[in-house]
Amino acid sequence: MRMYDLIRKKKNGEELTTEEIRYMIEGFTEGEVPDYQMSAMTMAICFRGMSKRETLDLTLAMRDSGDVLDLSAIEGIKVDKHSTGGVGDKTSLALTPIVAALGVPVAKMSGRGLGHTGGTIDKLECFPGFTTEISEETFVKNVNCIGIAIAGQTANLAPADKKLYALRDVTATVDQMSLIASSIMCKKLASGSDAIVLDVKTGNGAFMKRMEDSVALAEEMVSIGTLAGKKTAAVITDMDQPLGYAIGNSLEVAEAIDTLNGHGPKDFKEVVFALGSLMLQFANRAQNEEEAIRLMEGVIADGSARKKLAEFVLAQGGDAAPVFDPSLLPVAKMQMEVIAPTDGYVHRILAEEIGIACMTLGGGRETKESSIDLSVGIVLKKKNGDFVKAGETLAVIHGNELTKMAQARERIVGAYEISSEQIEKKPVICRYVGRHDF
Amino acid sequence: MRMYDLIRKKKNGEELTTEEIRYMIEGFTEGEVPDYQMSAMTMAICFRGMSKRETLDLTLAMRDSGDVLDLSAIEGIKVDKHSTGGVGDKTSLALTPIVAALGVPVAKMSGRGLGHTGGTIDKLECFPGFTTEISEETFVKNVNCIGIAIAGQTANLAPADKKLYALRDVTATVDQMSLIASSIMCKKLASGSDAIVLDVKTGNGAFMKRMEDSVALAEEMVSIGTLAGKKTAAVITDMDQPLGYAIGNSLEVAEAIDTLNGHGPKDFKEVVFALGSLMLQFANRAQNEEEAIRLMEGVIADGSARKKLAEFVLAQGGDAAPVFDPSLLPVAKMQMEVIAPTDGYVHRILAEEIGIACMTLGGGRETKESSIDLSVGIVLKKKNGDFVKAGETLAVIHGNELTKMAQARERIVGAYEISSEQIEKKPVICRYVGRHDF
Repeated sequence: MRMYDLIRKKKNGEELTTEEIRYMIEGFTEGEVPDYQMSAMTMAICFRGMSKRETLDLTLAMRDSGDVLDLSAIEGIKVDKHSTGGVGDKTSLALTPIVAALGVPVAKMSGRGLGHTGGTIDKLECFPGFTTEISEETFVKNVNCIGIAIAGQTANLAPADKKLYALRDVTATVDQMSLIASSIMCKKLASGSDAIVLDVKTGNGAFMKRMEDSVALAEEMVSIGTLAGKKTAAVITDMDQPLGYAIGNSLEVAEAIDTLNGHGPKDFKEVVFALGSLMLQFANRAQNEEEAIRLMEGVIADGSARKKLAEFVLAQGGDAAPVFDPSLLPVAKMQMEVIAPTDGYVHRILAEEIGIACMTLGGGRETKESSIDLSVGIVLKKKNGDFVKAGETLAVIHGNELTKMAQARERIVGAYEISSEQIEKKPVICRYVGRHDF
Repeated sequence: MRMYDLIRKKKNGEELTTEEIRYMIEGFTEGEVPDYQMSAMTMAICFRGMSKRETLDLTLAMRDSGDVLDLSAIEGIKVDKHSTGGVGDKTSLALTPIVAALGVPVAKMSGRGLGHTGGTIDKLECFPGFTTEISEETFVKNVNCIGIAIAGQTANLAPADKKLYALRDVTATVDQMSLIASSIMCKKLASGSDAIVLDVKTGNGAFMKRMEDSVALAEEMVSIGTLAGKKTAAVITDMDQPLGYAIGNSLEVAEAIDTLNGHGPKDFKEVVFALGSLMLQFANRAQNEEEAIRLMEGVIADGSARKKLAEFVLAQGGDAAPVFDPSLLPVAKMQMEVIAPTDGYVHRILAEEIGIACMTLGGGRETKESSIDLSVGIVLKKKNGDFVKAGETLAVIHGNELTKMAQARERIVGAYEISSEQIEKKPVICRYVGRHDF
């Protein structure tokens, strides 16, 4: 087999066989297929696409390029959850203790934030001492004992994907649906769970800005998961504004705790419940959405979800006091108000701009090596559909450096699209993909 | 400027600017644009194409990546000739002495053979002592004194093209019209001539197998040459069988000398005259084709073309005796006949197969480093349209090793497509491109 022939085949619009895709990915991982051939291939794929079968084969080949976790030592049906990434997306922080409190094992791998989107691990590190660097033994023990553990991704999880993504990133071949879907799903499949629930964001702050692209991506991923033998479903959720009100690590943790205390923002709670409902049904813990929501409301009302978060933080070396008193979380030195320049209705809040404003404050990473300030961030006071008067507060900036805060303020003012025309609030849950499987 | 943005532009079907193309080629030549970005770009070009302006800019940027020869020290209008490569194509050997004998300066760079096609330099080396490794001073002096000099390509002629071609060769991006045309033309433009005549082969033994592709390539090259300010025209010639009867270095030299003696094969002479006619008109030596042909017939009839070949061979260190007695050329030890297996008319002779048969005998190079046997080759006895009886000789193999000759015989038998249906002889000159400029 020669990579040259595979490139030519794909260029001519022919389908690659399972063996050919495996040869290509194995060769690429081992350095036998050079970058310049692989980048020609990915560009040809951008023009010719991949069939569902090819996409599955690509996903499985990338999954098998490194470690595939065996979670069989953990009892029960393990359901993984993945978000395509958004601004203010602290969903895992509230969702995982809720489902764990309901007896569904959470054995999850998470990442750190990069660019304008945050990451679960950074947020968890707001609890002093908390670490995701735990042994496999501790990971399995914690899930079996308290029902929840979150670890960082192991270095050898789908190395082919890591290498391929780096190459796509510099050759303008990131935005191909099959390549995106296989990149996400190979890691999910390598993580060893029995079922997968996907939160696919859509809108200006999401990777997929158009609904049709988000649906296509969700369908592609659900297809891969299902063909790979895992129950898989996706919720498409709105990212035409940040999720909830808080953006920034410690502010988001506080909002997640608020939610576990029953005071969460409506849109955020809806996303948590939509995903949680799918997870509980996949785990055979609830028969339908109504029952699932009733169960989730129950563990919030009786405090057991909040207690589960505390157990989880303690089990991974963290100080759990902030779970009960969020004022103990890292706090920024200064606050600055962002004032509405005009009367009107909020039509859009460019989420990416809000994410960049947070990064400007020091709350996000520009490169993987950057260190971040957990205390800074933004709390929105007005969201889409709200009426605002000139001079009213749109948002409050939490920061430690005045010049950076002033820069962030400029950006936040620009992120708010305000118009005299009244506008209806859009639902945060846009659509389900794959739920018909229940 | 970032290569990433240029790849994305081309991928999205936008046109690259002159500055962008220059940035890309300069960066690639200097190693600042890595191979993996360039191969993604060439694949995007395969799908999106290039405008005439982009193709010209690419050609000029590649021309300027290395030395651009200054032939101003040579008097007169310098006309270069290029063939896209065929089997039995000894055109330059007869054509250049003919036009030089008519006072048109020939200052040419040629290559060696590779794969199933031969090269002019290998053929010239059949004259013992002949060398193309001459100084620029000798090159210019010879053209001014005797009207003809042929040199090997300097190492630093269009290095960007050399690098880009090597990359295209391993990423299945060779067959894009603009990339092919710019690759040929950048070297022609760097060679410093005033006008360019192109021999674009078409048919099973050519790089372009379909007439429409050959026409498209010819038009692309004529467009580049014209836009670059050089008079340029092309002749599309048939390669559905080898040109002439002889294939193999010393056999082809003998056939070229025969032609200078007035006894050349009809098809070969037609190609020489078609190209020579364009060259003489570009050089203002003839007003039209009729006059050009009369002049060429004249220098053949009075022996001055043959005399010019002898002068040329002598001036570059060669023994000119074989010009007057071709039996002095390298001769193979053995001959073997290829016998027709059946009665019928010859419909096609797969030229590529004949070229490979010659390579099998030792007469061609598999890699650039291979050494070759100048004496071996094949002389066809039957060509397209000829009737042949079973048992008659189709071709004669000249070789030095019986086992290789037997292998070549198999291949030659297979190359002949013989059918009971009568077939008309096709003309060797298929079409002109760009001749309306006269």
